[in-house]
Amino acid sequence: MSTSAKSYAAQSATSPLAPFTLERRTPTETDVAIEILFCGVCHSDLHTARNEWQNTTFPTVPGHEIVGRVTAVGSKVTKFRQGDLVGVGCMVDSDRTCPACQAGLEQYCVQFPILTYNSPDKHLGGMTYGGYSDSIVVDEAFVLRVPENLDPAAAAPLLCAGITTYSPLRHWKVGKGQKVGIVGLGGLGHMGLKFAHAMGAHTVLFTTSPSKAEDAKRLGADEVIISKNADEMQKHAGSFDFILDAVAADHDLNAYLNLLKVDGSMVLVGAPEKPLPVSSFSLILGRRSLAGSLIGGIPETQEMLDFCGQHNIVSDIEKIDIQNINEAYERMLKSDVKYRFVIDMASLKK
Amino acid sequence: MSTSAKSYAAQSATSPLAPFTLERRTPTETDVAIEILFCGVCHSDLHTARNEWQNTTFPTVPGHEIVGRVTAVGSKVTKFRQGDLVGVGCMVDSDRTCPACQAGLEQYCVQFPILTYNSPDKHLGGMTYGGYSDSIVVDEAFVLRVPENLDPAAAAPLLCAGITTYSPLRHWKVGKGQKVGIVGLGGLGHMGLKFAHAMGAHTVLFTTSPSKAEDAKRLGADEVIISKNADEMQKHAGSFDFILDAVAADHDLNAYLNLLKVDGSMVLVGAPEKPLPVSSFSLILGRRSLAGSLIGGIPETQEMLDFCGQHNIVSDIEKIDIQNINEAYERMLKSDVKYRFVIDMASLKK
Repeated sequence: MSTSAKSYAAQSATSPLAPFTLERRTPTETDVAIEILFCGVCHSDLHTARNEWQNTTFPTVPGHEIVGRVTAVGSKVTKFRQGDLVGVGCMVDSDRTCPACQAGLEQYCVQFPILTYNSPDKHLGGMTYGGYSDSIVVDEAFVLRVPENLDPAAAAPLLCAGITTYSPLRHWKVGKGQKVGIVGLGGLGHMGLKFAHAMGAHTVLFTTSPSKAEDAKRLGADEVIISKNADEMQKHAGSFDFILDAVAADHDLNAYLNLLKVDGSMVLVGAPEKPLPVSSFSLILGRRSLAGSLIGGIPETQEMLDFCGQHNIVSDIEKIDIQNINEAYERMLKSDVKYRFVIDMASLKK
Repeated sequence: MSTSAKSYAAQSATSPLAPFTLERRTPTETDVAIEILFCGVCHSDLHTARNEWQNTTFPTVPGHEIVGRVTAVGSKVTKFRQGDLVGVGCMVDSDRTCPACQAGLEQYCVQFPILTYNSPDKHLGGMTYGGYSDSIVVDEAFVLRVPENLDPAAAAPLLCAGITTYSPLRHWKVGKGQKVGIVGLGGLGHMGLKFAHAMGAHTVLFTTSPSKAEDAKRLGADEVIISKNADEMQKHAGSFDFILDAVAADHDLNAYLNLLKVDGSMVLVGAPEKPLPVSSFSLILGRRSLAGSLIGGIPETQEMLDFCGQHNIVSDIEKIDIQNINEAYERMLKSDVKYRFVIDMASLKK
């Protein structure tokens, strides 16, 4: 009750990704079968392929920024038809009954959601396989509609980098009349810039690299602050309504907390490996909050895609063939990408 | 244009508090002159007397939990009359024009509020002198009405310990149907317990001392969790709506953050001296917030006192003569007080 699919998999933490044949289930009544056209390359893919979180089951097929066309639907599928342009993000299922799932916050499912790759697969056994593949079968509840006016390749990173930055900006009600900071200009940060700008906020990019200033302005920044310059930082003390921190490396959170207004919030979406020191005074003097946010729920992911359709927002990408994925990982480690690699899945047919 | 007042002052960081004569200004048109009946003893008093924050100007007269009777009012005072029972907390003025002051959040005044002691005194020059004294003169905008049904001695700590815990519980909308934790059972924590209980929350005390369990229940705790017991902590993972952390010593914040529900908040009101490590995963997995809160504004302090009047809430206190203040400091350092020392200012006349 399954079909073979071409893919690229890592067979161990130290082996490069290489061709692999996997099985996709025959669609159930509520499933959508998708021909994958493009798949974005997220840092999590690399962490998983190299078992850097010590939780990878091999072989593993990464990829959770998937855009494709519907090729078949189960008899009870109501939202999608053959030929629709659709997306799949980080999750392919959840318990659907806990308070978080009921609230459309499947990413915080108390049982933990079934991730698109490296999660137990209740249909075929083994683990779920992600989007570095020519096809995937997903329950319609976890399939998103991608606006047809968007470039499907550049839309792929919206499914993870997009929703990860959109969700906190929306949840903390960023909008007109606010001064909003984005820390770090990478795959996440460049989407944060575009969204905060489109939401009408006065948008400020924090970066350690003066060379990024021009590009940041092109992407939507009204101002650029070089975060290594303490004097420049100090000029902005107490002036930010909201700061989105998209940096995964160690960095000084207190320097940013002190830039928040009374009742301002700073939200982490990058996940520094080690705990970072937080000064209680930074929080107490101004009733400031430091929070975290994880991707977004399915309803909000659809809202984000619709917002992107209306505002013509996509990711800035570099398209690659899947044969170059290992090289792309090395470049990603050096931040040598503007701003997201996307695999053209047509290359799998070569 | 001033009157002498008896007080106790520290003349240096290493000298014990001792009798001192200070000047209080002749009331201006908007001033209220107060005979101080009782003054609570806050840990900040000790920090200032011993210059532990390296910002004390000596001599210094601590005390910012003041309850007394109005003895005279300026010609333009509208809210108070001679004989009224009133309170003065941590602030005696602010710029009154910044957005924070306009919002009734004088504690976050952009110019920083004029504190009751050890702040520049714009009337007489020098520094402000606090409540370890037989009288004080304060602008009516910073004077609070104390409900007559409350024991005035036990009401004194409401002006700092009370508002410091009431304000975050109110701001984060603690109430019925919620599970709320209070970390630490001291001067602040015991007020937090009383307020959370009175607001209708299921109230849980976290303590390292099993011996405090019985008293915690008397004060309003529905449950007591011994925070050193990891198994007991783990049973409550993901179950708290709100946690108020009133501990000033170093402790592991992440152990508490993990107990919060999705969208739960933990708020620091104790101020650990050193920055504490915060795991980004604790925040990201559940969109949790870590925040801080500083005393409360004048309107909210009046609201808190009125709430205490309605619910008959005061602090649990141990009354002392001012001649015993140095001994009280030593006992406070050992947490040997249930739960707040209050100076009976009649002892100043001895």
